[in-house]
Amino acid sequence: MIDIDVLDRNIERMAASLRNRGLKLRPHAKTHKTHEIASKQLAAGAVGLTVATIGEAEVFVEGGASDIFIAYPLWVDTHHADRLRQLATVATIAVGIDSVEGATAMGRSLGADAGSISVLIEVDSGHHRSGVLPGEVSLVARAAAVSGLNIAGVFTFPGHSYTPGMPLAAANNENEALSLAAAELASAGFDVKEISGGSTPTALLEGETVATELRPGVYIFGDAQQLELERCAWDEIALTVATTVVSRHEARSGNVRRIVVDAGSKILGSDRPGWATGYGRLADYPDARITALSEHHATIEWPENTDLPMLGQRLRVIPNHVCLAMNLVDEVTVVQDGSLVDRWSVAARGRNS
Amino acid sequence: MIDIDVLDRNIERMAASLRNRGLKLRPHAKTHKTHEIASKQLAAGAVGLTVATIGEAEVFVEGGASDIFIAYPLWVDTHHADRLRQLATVATIAVGIDSVEGATAMGRSLGADAGSISVLIEVDSGHHRSGVLPGEVSLVARAAAVSGLNIAGVFTFPGHSYTPGMPLAAANNENEALSLAAAELASAGFDVKEISGGSTPTALLEGETVATELRPGVYIFGDAQQLELERCAWDEIALTVATTVVSRHEARSGNVRRIVVDAGSKILGSDRPGWATGYGRLADYPDARITALSEHHATIEWPENTDLPMLGQRLRVIPNHVCLAMNLVDEVTVVQDGSLVDRWSVAARGRNS
Repeated sequence: MIDIDVLDRNIERMAASLRNRGLKLRPHAKTHKTHEIASKQLAAGAVGLTVATIGEAEVFVEGGASDIFIAYPLWVDTHHADRLRQLATVATIAVGIDSVEGATAMGRSLGADAGSISVLIEVDSGHHRSGVLPGEVSLVARAAAVSGLNIAGVFTFPGHSYTPGMPLAAANNENEALSLAAAELASAGFDVKEISGGSTPTALLEGETVATELRPGVYIFGDAQQLELERCAWDEIALTVATTVVSRHEARSGNVRRIVVDAGSKILGSDRPGWATGYGRLADYPDARITALSEHHATIEWPENTDLPMLGQRLRVIPNHVCLAMNLVDEVTVVQDGSLVDRWSVAARGRNS
Repeated sequence: MIDIDVLDRNIERMAASLRNRGLKLRPHAKTHKTHEIASKQLAAGAVGLTVATIGEAEVFVEGGASDIFIAYPLWVDTHHADRLRQLATVATIAVGIDSVEGATAMGRSLGADAGSISVLIEVDSGHHRSGVLPGEVSLVARAAAVSGLNIAGVFTFPGHSYTPGMPLAAANNENEALSLAAAELASAGFDVKEISGGSTPTALLEGETVATELRPGVYIFGDAQQLELERCAWDEIALTVATTVVSRHEARSGNVRRIVVDAGSKILGSDRPGWATGYGRLADYPDARITALSEHHATIEWPENTDLPMLGQRLRVIPNHVCLAMNLVDEVTVVQDGSLVDRWSVAARGRNS
């Protein structure tokens, strides 16, 4: 259930922030997977979209997107190459790389069409997932150039910003890694057209950056993780999951009061970082805690000073990680002032490859 | 990717175990959500199916299932009642209840058709999720009877069996709770037709039980949780996720060797109990550890004495919780002796309500 007014405000706030700083916005569409929201982002000034997979790129290009960055170190075999080649005939396509082998495989598979695809070299800014370290950028760039690919620049994702107290340090790490990588690429004789950074927590800090563009995703909806990281406010939450109380347990000796609602990991997703207070939050009861989650049950411990909801009562749950929740449904309901105004198809749901 | 020979062996082993003990098998179809597997389970002697939602019941009844237990304390409004009424015209339908209010609401919404639906009263055997405690069974049963519902028996789910060292204790708790609940229901003058128990970990223990039927789900596939609970063996894993190495990092000072494969929480699900060794296991590398998971990346720490896989290499990942993995795809590939032999639609994927 998406509140369209909150969504529109979130889209405009991020767009304005980047516009004011002279940065390009290339929002990550894996968060929403939805044509209607991509259109709103592009209308608000986004230069293009970011996606994670070729499948997502296909969906958004089919929907009219003309400039897509697949921010992922794809391993491109001949089958993938056919799909990339097809995409590049109708849109500007960039892809991530983080290894000599990956660049070589991509170039070999694309053959004579390698030059139709731009690549950005991923650098590790502290998240220690994919990405090369400073000093390895030029090696990968040269392999890509030899393979006929078009070198566009560098990118990073400061995923370690998803920890309380870390967004500022992660933003500094991100800026430093991008600076070093861009300098290394320039020293190796390449034209650095794009320096692309992450993430919702760091983008909203509005610090100094060498980046030319940012790729936040979650900012359009917010979620319980962003709330607990203090990177969004309660009234900036645009997406909630409608649930019903199905089981209710008043305090017994030794037990806390609890209710069970009919939303579980198959609708909320089950991401739960160690620092999170639970498996999501209740939109109207900030002191309630979702202490356990199974596929169709969320167990909620209820604060002592508040009446326990009645059986059959409707409650709105804020998922911990909204990208997972969107990927679990084929359709979302869109509300305005509490009334249903539209339904949107989650067009790229499940497009994992 | 499902290995059909392993699947068939798993289906037959559970069926034989229950047959030999004179127990009815009513497998939980939320695990697979697939007509082809439901048919195999019924052909192997299952008396019917268990599901979690009305939507799942609708899919399986449409596929020909004639006897369904929705093992969930549904809150039944008039819309749900219409759907249950429709189902009951073509199949035998039972539903869980765990409160006077829930039973009353269901009876009121069904009106004159209340008698077409059987109910089983859920008891809490130690999982502390939904379910009543001993002593409350007769109260709920009387409310259901007054509402015109057909009382069929009692059920429980010993979810606390999903902890290392707990399956035996949980099975004992389950048996004790079912004994007490059945005795209480009989004392209140009701005919106890069914005493229905869980779960894959407890069902495979083959202990003494008062249950008349069991509702295991995961046993057909196994998963990394069941492996680590020692409730299935490596060669009993029927479902794996095919992945490709996309990023590779040999040891650096202070860092462990790691690879990244292109399977994340959007294909594996992100359930990770505190006792698990990681976010799933590698089918062919038992010493590798999936230490981090994002939407499209699994970060894998590699054991020291084994060569780090090459970029582009294919690896099979065993998800932690297979029910979540199935719910993320529209289709599965079926293999035999390593060759593709079929594709099955995950017909009830996303049917959360």
